Amino acid sequence: MNIGLDMMGGDFAPLEAVKGLQLYLSDNPHAAALFCIGDEAKVQPLLEEYGIVSPGLQVIHAPEVIGYHEHPTKALKEKQRSSIAIGFHLLATGKIDAFISAGNTGAMLVGAMFSIKTIPGILRPTISTIIPKLNGGTGLLLDVGLNADCKPEQLNQFAILGTLYASHILNISDPKTGLMNVGEEEGKGNLLAQATYPLLKENTQIHFAGNIEGRDIFSDKADVIVCDGFTGNIILKMAESVYDISLQRGINDAYFSRFHYENYGGTPVLGVNKPVIIGHGISNAKAFQNMIIVAEKMIQSDLCGKMAEQFRS
Amino acid sequence: MNIGLDMMGGDFAPLEAVKGLQLYLSDNPHAAALFCIGDEAKVQPLLEEYGIVSPGLQVIHAPEVIGYHEHPTKALKEKQRSSIAIGFHLLATGKIDAFISAGNTGAMLVGAMFSIKTIPGILRPTISTIIPKLNGGTGLLLDVGLNADCKPEQLNQFAILGTLYASHILNISDPKTGLMNVGEEEGKGNLLAQATYPLLKENTQIHFAGNIEGRDIFSDKADVIVCDGFTGNIILKMAESVYDISLQRGINDAYFSRFHYENYGGTPVLGVNKPVIIGHGISNAKAFQNMIIVAEKMIQSDLCGKMAEQFRS
Repeated sequence: MNIGLDMMGGDFAPLEAVKGLQLYLSDNPHAAALFCIGDEAKVQPLLEEYGIVSPGLQVIHAPEVIGYHEHPTKALKEKQRSSIAIGFHLLATGKIDAFISAGNTGAMLVGAMFSIKTIPGILRPTISTIIPKLNGGTGLLLDVGLNADCKPEQLNQFAILGTLYASHILNISDPKTGLMNVGEEEGKGNLLAQATYPLLKENTQIHFAGNIEGRDIFSDKADVIVCDGFTGNIILKMAESVYDISLQRGINDAYFSRFHYENYGGTPVLGVNKPVIIGHGISNAKAFQNMIIVAEKMIQSDLCGKMAEQFRS
Repeated sequence: MNIGLDMMGGDFAPLEAVKGLQLYLSDNPHAAALFCIGDEAKVQPLLEEYGIVSPGLQVIHAPEVIGYHEHPTKALKEKQRSSIAIGFHLLATGKIDAFISAGNTGAMLVGAMFSIKTIPGILRPTISTIIPKLNGGTGLLLDVGLNADCKPEQLNQFAILGTLYASHILNISDPKTGLMNVGEEEGKGNLLAQATYPLLKENTQIHFAGNIEGRDIFSDKADVIVCDGFTGNIILKMAESVYDISLQRGINDAYFSRFHYENYGGTPVLGVNKPVIIGHGISNAKAFQNMIIVAEKMIQSDLCGKMAEQFRS
């Protein structure tokens, strides 16, 4: 299994990516072959400095970088020798089995959709976030921002994608899906939620657990929560801010600590043909390590293949 | 000034309402005339037990109660001798200047809209919640659930209503209004947010501060945050759950404590012709006290009159 890692993405590139590799390799010495995509002159010395040696590790030279504020489509087209463009090229041609980057999110999404492409039958890919549950478990919320406006059919597809991710990557058996809503009973909600409820109820590919209110997000009422990307993005960022506030207030609590983004690493793009993982701009070593681990699980479980199977008509 | 208080609303009725009156009167012995609407046989002995004497206090007998699970319109029609029906009758006929209840929320909303009626020019009334700001201040979020689906014009009106509430009740001078959104720049968001942004930008009745992301809700970027009721209700309930979790985790923090609903008491219905305040079902003494204080401020500042003025064409 070959994993491609963009060494030039993230605010602390390439240092944190290098330290992430070090963490990963110290736990998994006989691990995946790692393709470190980035500026050789910057990456190689750091790999040596951190004593990173692995038979499967190689540096793929990429002299260009797509900055955070560049226009995604334009940058991908014009900077074909950038780490992100090369990463997608390697992924599309089968040289790597998964691609990870903490770089320009827009470029990662455009690359995923246009070079790797959406799985046939899926209306739109989606991005998700991990929800730490009060009971110690982990849930999944999707969409968290790729699709600000959604149709009921999309939310119904997110439920299937989320169920597969929860089963195969989070190891939740028979995950329950909830519909983000403003009341418990069927018929509650905005037009989207009202129209989505019956679809989820009749969907035999998921285990539907009904509506989930704002107060239930961290409870064990549902493992997978579906919503439009506008709502999901606000929930995600609000949860991140609660974590930041708890830090600022000097609160040291094991549950609140689980909200730190580094614990889940990054967000996979679900619904495209191959594993693509997007990291937070502020990704640190632990986040990079966790993204590599998630990529590994996605490859091992053939998650994308399983998704394609579910949508084969 | 005459304030009507439904003694039969809330899970702990009429005891907590009585204790709330006691708290209120101990701070304001020469305060508003209070109309205590409820079952005389239950209310009178408690008022005596708690030594509540005030020249302006009187019990208005209401032998019926509208339960939490009753259909609002049907119950209001059939139970004309219920505390909520009598409260709205007193308010509509000018016997009281504000009406407070922690009873059936639906019945309170129906009563407000059909007996007190929406201010001419306002598309739909709205309900809001107080947001404790990290800087010690207080903000307002609206709508939080009355209008699950909104039009841009409604959000633009919420901005005006929220600005007036923040100015006159929260005493914020020149309150800034933010649009709940998923990105900072104009053009971001779902169709509703995209269409609302230019309206807010051109609205000279407010001080528009741009988009507010999920991470900014508790910051001082905006004093008034507008969104559709679906989004707002999820934010409200999620914030309440964060407070509950902090309690459950044994976290004792002054900032998180400010999330306790009792501190703001209840939610006023904004956009109707007279002050109507709806309390949480679990309202305790302090919540009742605070609702009476808010009602007082709404009457004193003639908030409803000021709202009508702004919408006079």
